[in-house]
Amino acid sequence: MRVLVLGADGYLGWPTCMYLARKGHEVMATDGMLKRKWEVEVSGKPINPPRPYQQRAKLWNHLRDDGQANNVGWAAESCPIEYITYPINIADNPASLYRLVDTFRPEGIVHYAEQPSAPYSQATRRSAVNTQTNNIVGTLNLIFATAHLAEKPHIVKLGSMGEYGTPNLPIREGWLDVTVWDGLKRYRDRVLYPKRPGSWYHLSKVHDSHNLEFACRTYGLRCTDLNQGVVYGVNTDETAIHPDLRTSLHYDAIFGTAINRFCAQAATGVPLTVYGEGGQTRGFLDIRDTLRCVELALDNPPASGEFRVFNQFTQVFTIQELALFIRRALGRYRIDVQIENVENPRVEAEQHFYAPKATGLKELGLDPHLLSEDLICDLVKKFMEHRDEINLESIQPSIKWRSQSSTVANKVASNIAIGVATGGEENRT
Amino acid sequence: MRVLVLGADGYLGWPTCMYLARKGHEVMATDGMLKRKWEVEVSGKPINPPRPYQQRAKLWNHLRDDGQANNVGWAAESCPIEYITYPINIADNPASLYRLVDTFRPEGIVHYAEQPSAPYSQATRRSAVNTQTNNIVGTLNLIFATAHLAEKPHIVKLGSMGEYGTPNLPIREGWLDVTVWDGLKRYRDRVLYPKRPGSWYHLSKVHDSHNLEFACRTYGLRCTDLNQGVVYGVNTDETAIHPDLRTSLHYDAIFGTAINRFCAQAATGVPLTVYGEGGQTRGFLDIRDTLRCVELALDNPPASGEFRVFNQFTQVFTIQELALFIRRALGRYRIDVQIENVENPRVEAEQHFYAPKATGLKELGLDPHLLSEDLICDLVKKFMEHRDEINLESIQPSIKWRSQSSTVANKVASNIAIGVATGGEENRT
Repeated sequence: MRVLVLGADGYLGWPTCMYLARKGHEVMATDGMLKRKWEVEVSGKPINPPRPYQQRAKLWNHLRDDGQANNVGWAAESCPIEYITYPINIADNPASLYRLVDTFRPEGIVHYAEQPSAPYSQATRRSAVNTQTNNIVGTLNLIFATAHLAEKPHIVKLGSMGEYGTPNLPIREGWLDVTVWDGLKRYRDRVLYPKRPGSWYHLSKVHDSHNLEFACRTYGLRCTDLNQGVVYGVNTDETAIHPDLRTSLHYDAIFGTAINRFCAQAATGVPLTVYGEGGQTRGFLDIRDTLRCVELALDNPPASGEFRVFNQFTQVFTIQELALFIRRALGRYRIDVQIENVENPRVEAEQHFYAPKATGLKELGLDPHLLSEDLICDLVKKFMEHRDEINLESIQPSIKWRSQSSTVANKVASNIAIGVATGGEENRT
Repeated sequence: MRVLVLGADGYLGWPTCMYLARKGHEVMATDGMLKRKWEVEVSGKPINPPRPYQQRAKLWNHLRDDGQANNVGWAAESCPIEYITYPINIADNPASLYRLVDTFRPEGIVHYAEQPSAPYSQATRRSAVNTQTNNIVGTLNLIFATAHLAEKPHIVKLGSMGEYGTPNLPIREGWLDVTVWDGLKRYRDRVLYPKRPGSWYHLSKVHDSHNLEFACRTYGLRCTDLNQGVVYGVNTDETAIHPDLRTSLHYDAIFGTAINRFCAQAATGVPLTVYGEGGQTRGFLDIRDTLRCVELALDNPPASGEFRVFNQFTQVFTIQELALFIRRALGRYRIDVQIENVENPRVEAEQHFYAPKATGLKELGLDPHLLSEDLICDLVKKFMEHRDEINLESIQPSIKWRSQSSTVANKVASNIAIGVATGGEENRT
């Protein structure tokens, strides 16, 4: 299958390129390279930063050519990874995206090309606006780049479980069968699951989903929206081939997620900082399951006009449970781990009902990798190897969800340097 | 009350300024003047175009100063209308918006400052992107301009009944009480009403509503979202004061709505063009009721943190019924009206269930003006007076909802000149 991967430089984008190429798909990789810019802005570089996707693709192709010789277990059907040398920002450069789609003629498009951080989106007015415009316009451009094709490529769009929020209802997969009584009359319909997300970032994904559903209905597009839980791990069968094929490992408060942050803290001997009571419950999955889910979605495309949604996670934990899991895992090595409940920078329920469904991908054949103590120890080991690079400051939450009523009120630039801070904007006309 | 009106140059914005000023409110008027640019782009000028809002405000203030002398029935409490001389585009110029809010300190903000046309948004990729970014970013900037204030102004945001689409469920006012069964367990929650809009424009309004709901929850804003039906009429108590205080009357397929288009057609003796079967059912209201609804919302602000929604219409008609109503009204003057059912350019159900609720504003005191044959005749008269200005071509639908699969496929610029057409973009890098 010809698969275009947008966001191929990212934490999930790059491993997806390798995974699909190894399975014999013709992969075309591109990325706008915006995330690396944002990393610098917020002092949120990953440890041992991976090379740009173009260099990794080149290395992949080189190693593959030598495959039989160096005996790294290349599957017989492995393909090279094609890549676009000059980064394409799909939000700013629709013309290049149109041309790429018209020439490569993908059957599947995996769309990771979005600003992926909730804290980043909450930092300032500018970061909220940038997040929403970048994500919405990129997705709109993708819709228009494919809407005119006679044979519509299947768009696999990465969403987030965070879009749902924490309703007092079981969470279904994207759609909800609703019964409404009006007096003695009963009405039924299937509606988009009503979402109530908790950040400007998560809202941008909800907007994307609404736009994509409309595009399916109106232009006959075919789309799978993957509402993904929190991904952990950095090792896949393909990253094992060569150290320079690695993907990024973020641990900071902006681009790192809970498990990574905790492992970095454990590796440096500081307490794991749990936000608030830690009763926040979320879905999680191993990076290898992300790749498999994307493959399952691609292998089973929806019909033209169908907007299909899967929830993509394999286990549910509270944040406090995760911290305890990590403490237990490291206990084997007699590493003592402290847990500290700090003030929650976010606006979220710390104790809540949570019953999300995720059966669609399992029905298609997903066989989950569950969270293991081995994986945790391996992650902590990685952080220990790069201990000198770790900026502990960057793990502390610097962005408060309600900062608009404090920082901005005092016309003080927020304490991280995202673009021009609000205080400065006030003086600009 | 100090009220800031954003979009004060528009069809509803200007009459709102006058209405509120006459009721004794301190009104501050501003507008980005984008609509007038778009009108030129799509050859969609209103007949007898009104003066810019600054000139109308100046005239208002002048007439008011002379009020007692020239006996036009000024209410004793009438206020002047303050206005910003240099147009503020709230999407592009947050700094000016911040400054305006900080200096004027509005208690209420009426937010009309959005691209208001569904067909415009459907024309090209560029017009879809412009509509969504203009509307979303403008509203985000307004959120951030008010979020830091200790005393939050009440934002009255104009939405659209079209956001709901046509579900097989009764339409509630913004929120829906949902019961979900999971096996034998029953769960209940109050959720944002699940919407399924029919254009990029309507989607932008849905995105705005999600963003505003989050802002209420997170920053403690207070917001009323008015999901408005199709407005008709151009006469209010205030436009009667002087002919140069008039508001705009659009009749083209892009900015004109059904009643206006039909009246322009009747006035020029061509058949009324009903899209498809004409069974499309919509809510409608008189422009005078819009003003009253906005006033009722302002007079009864929600609590801090509350996102309140009202549906704002007074009557429900099918498009075919409207056409017949107009034929009947003009029968009195022996004007013969033909009705023609033309191919529907939109993607919408032409026969559907429709049971929208609109009780909130009536409970607050709305006493509706119902559609009358007199009003229709008056509208037709206005069009007859300016018959020479009417461009019949512009009433024909030039924008097809599914054009992406035809026009763009052939790389032909779409037949209206909105921005740079898609064909041209393809060659730009």
